[in-house]
Amino acid sequence: MSGAPADVRLTLEEVRALARRVLLAAGLAAPHAFAVAETMVAGERDGCASHGIYRLLVAARSIAAGVVVTDAVPAVSEPAPALVQVDGGGGFAQLAFETGRPLLAEKARRYGIAALALNHVVHFAALWPEVEALAEDGLVALAFTPSHAWVAPTGGTQPVFGTNPIAFGWPRPGAHPFVFDFATSAVARGEIELHRRAGKPVPDDWGYDAAGAPTTDAEAVLAGAMRTFGGHKGSALAAMVELLAGPLIGDMTSRESIALDDGRGGSPIGGELIVAIDPAGFLGLGVAGHLQRAEALFDAIEGQGARLPSQRRYDARQRSLAEGVIIPGALYADILALPGGEK
Amino acid sequence: MSGAPADVRLTLEEVRALARRVLLAAGLAAPHAFAVAETMVAGERDGCASHGIYRLLVAARSIAAGVVVTDAVPAVSEPAPALVQVDGGGGFAQLAFETGRPLLAEKARRYGIAALALNHVVHFAALWPEVEALAEDGLVALAFTPSHAWVAPTGGTQPVFGTNPIAFGWPRPGAHPFVFDFATSAVARGEIELHRRAGKPVPDDWGYDAAGAPTTDAEAVLAGAMRTFGGHKGSALAAMVELLAGPLIGDMTSRESIALDDGRGGSPIGGELIVAIDPAGFLGLGVAGHLQRAEALFDAIEGQGARLPSQRRYDARQRSLAEGVIIPGALYADILALPGGEK
Repeated sequence: MSGAPADVRLTLEEVRALARRVLLAAGLAAPHAFAVAETMVAGERDGCASHGIYRLLVAARSIAAGVVVTDAVPAVSEPAPALVQVDGGGGFAQLAFETGRPLLAEKARRYGIAALALNHVVHFAALWPEVEALAEDGLVALAFTPSHAWVAPTGGTQPVFGTNPIAFGWPRPGAHPFVFDFATSAVARGEIELHRRAGKPVPDDWGYDAAGAPTTDAEAVLAGAMRTFGGHKGSALAAMVELLAGPLIGDMTSRESIALDDGRGGSPIGGELIVAIDPAGFLGLGVAGHLQRAEALFDAIEGQGARLPSQRRYDARQRSLAEGVIIPGALYADILALPGGEK
Repeated sequence: MSGAPADVRLTLEEVRALARRVLLAAGLAAPHAFAVAETMVAGERDGCASHGIYRLLVAARSIAAGVVVTDAVPAVSEPAPALVQVDGGGGFAQLAFETGRPLLAEKARRYGIAALALNHVVHFAALWPEVEALAEDGLVALAFTPSHAWVAPTGGTQPVFGTNPIAFGWPRPGAHPFVFDFATSAVARGEIELHRRAGKPVPDDWGYDAAGAPTTDAEAVLAGAMRTFGGHKGSALAAMVELLAGPLIGDMTSRESIALDDGRGGSPIGGELIVAIDPAGFLGLGVAGHLQRAEALFDAIEGQGARLPSQRRYDARQRSLAEGVIIPGALYADILALPGGEK
C-alpha cells in the first residue's frame, strides 16, 4: 500500500475551486471555465464520477490539442419567433447553453413551446444538467445531441450514429425534477473503455469488430462499432437524434464530426437541440392540478419498488451536500499534476 | 377446404368504399367515417393488417358499446401562439387530427416550432399516418400518445404505462418520408393476443402475471403486465409519453384511461401530443442543402444492408397501389356480416 495515494474528501466548494483553477490554467477564458466547472461540480455532487472532475483531464487534453476555441463568445440569434440559435464559435457547449437559456425559457412561456439550437460547440458533458435546469424553472424539456460515429444501425455493423443521448426533464412541485438522460447506444462508450483497460472481455452483444463480426474484444469494438440499445427501436431513435440535432439545425452528423476529427481523438464537435414546453401553455390555471396527476404516476412507479430515473443521482446529491465527495487518490494526484492543480 | 372462405383481392378504392359503408352503417357521422376509413385504407395499403380493415370490427364494437361519440365535432382553440388544442369531444382521433393539422402546420411555419394537443379522443390507430402526413408537408414531426395501463415500469411488475407509442417523421426530397412509429412496450399487445388465441406460450421476458411473476402464459401476461422494450431506457421513454400526452395537455394517463374503461374493453380514450418543426426555421434558405446531408445518413444506413424503419411499409404500398390488397377470407366474411358490409 506504500505508494498508492489515499482517497481524499473534498467539499463541493473545493471541487469547484479546483476545477476553475485547472480550467483557467489550461487557458480557458473565465466565462467558459466557470460554466464548465459547474457541470463537473454537478457530476461529482450527483455521484456521476465519469462526468465529474475526471473530465478535467479530458478538457485539458482537448484544449492542449487545439480542438476547443478557449475564448469563444457565443452569439445568439432568433431565426424564428419561437426559435433561439446560439453559435458557440467552437467553444465548450456549457456557456453556449447558458447564453441561450434565458431566451429559450422566455420564448417557451410566450409561445407555449420553443426550441434552442446550439451550433459549433464542443461536447463532453451530460445533457441532464440542462434539462434539469429548465425543469427547475418549471418547463418541460427535451435535449438531443449526436457525437462521433461509433454505433451501427440495427441490421448493419458499420458505425453511423453517435452514442446520441436523449434527455428529458419534467418539473415536480416540491421535489427534484423527473429527469432522464441516456445514450441510445447499448452501453456507454466509457464502459467499453473500462473493460479494455481492465483487459476484460465484453458481452458479445455490445458490438462488432471492424470486419462486422460480433466480438467480445473491447478494443475491437472500440475500433469497430457499438450496437444501439433496444434493437430496431433504439436504432430508430439514434437516427432521430442525428437528424434533429444535425441537419435540422445545420450542424454535423456523427459521421461528419468524426471525419473532421480525423483521428485526433478530440471530443465531438457539433450541435444540440433543446425543446422547452411551458405547462401553462396548454393548462393555463390548471397547471397545479395536472402536475399533481403526474405525481400520482410517479407514486405508482415508486410504490411498487421501481425507481425513478434520477433517484440515484438525487440520493448522491443529498449525501454530497452534507458530507462532500470522495475523489480517488490516483485521480486526485493526476489532477494536481495539471497546471493550476496545486494552489 | 370446403367451408373455408377464400381470400379476396380488393383494390384500395374497394377497401375505402367498404370501410366507409360499414362505419356509416355503424352510426358514425360522415366526417368521422371518412377520416377513420382513410387510416384503414392506409393500413391495408402499407401491409399493416392489424391497422387495416380488421379494425372495422374493433370500431363497430366500440361504437356499439357506446364508448365513442359518433357525431362529435372537434373544437379548435389556440391556448398560446404556437399551440393548437383540439377537443375531440369523445370522438375518434382521426377527425380531431385532421381538424387541427392545418393550423399546426401554419404555426410551425410561422413560429419555427409548434405543438398540437388532441384531447378527449378515442384512439385505435397507429401514429405513423399523422407524422407521415406532416412530413409530406415538409415538416419534422413527433407524436406521442398513452393508452391503457398494461405495461410495468422496469424494476416493477404492476401495470402503470400504456403501450405508449412514439412516432417520428422527417421529410425527404424526392422520397417517402423517413418515418418510425413504435410502442415503448416490449411487443405489441396484439402480438400477445395472437399467442393467446393460438394457445402458444410467449417468451418469458415479455411480461408478468398478476402476482408479479415472469410467465410464458399469454393470457396471464394480458391479465398481468407487459414489459417495456429496452429495459430502464424504454421504461423512461414510456414515462415521458405518459407525461407529455397526459398531464402536460390536461388529459388522462394510461392508468386513468383504464380505470374509466372499467372493464368494458373499449379503446383507450385520452390525448395525443404532436410537435411539428419547420426545417426552414433554423435553416432558412439552406434547407435543401442540409436535407441532402440527411440523405447521406440514410445512404450510410442502407448502404450496409440495414433497413430504414418504414421501408417495408413503402414496399408494400408500391405493390398495393399496383395490385390491390389480399384480405383473408374469414376476415372478409366477418366484415361483410357487419351492418353495411354487403352493398
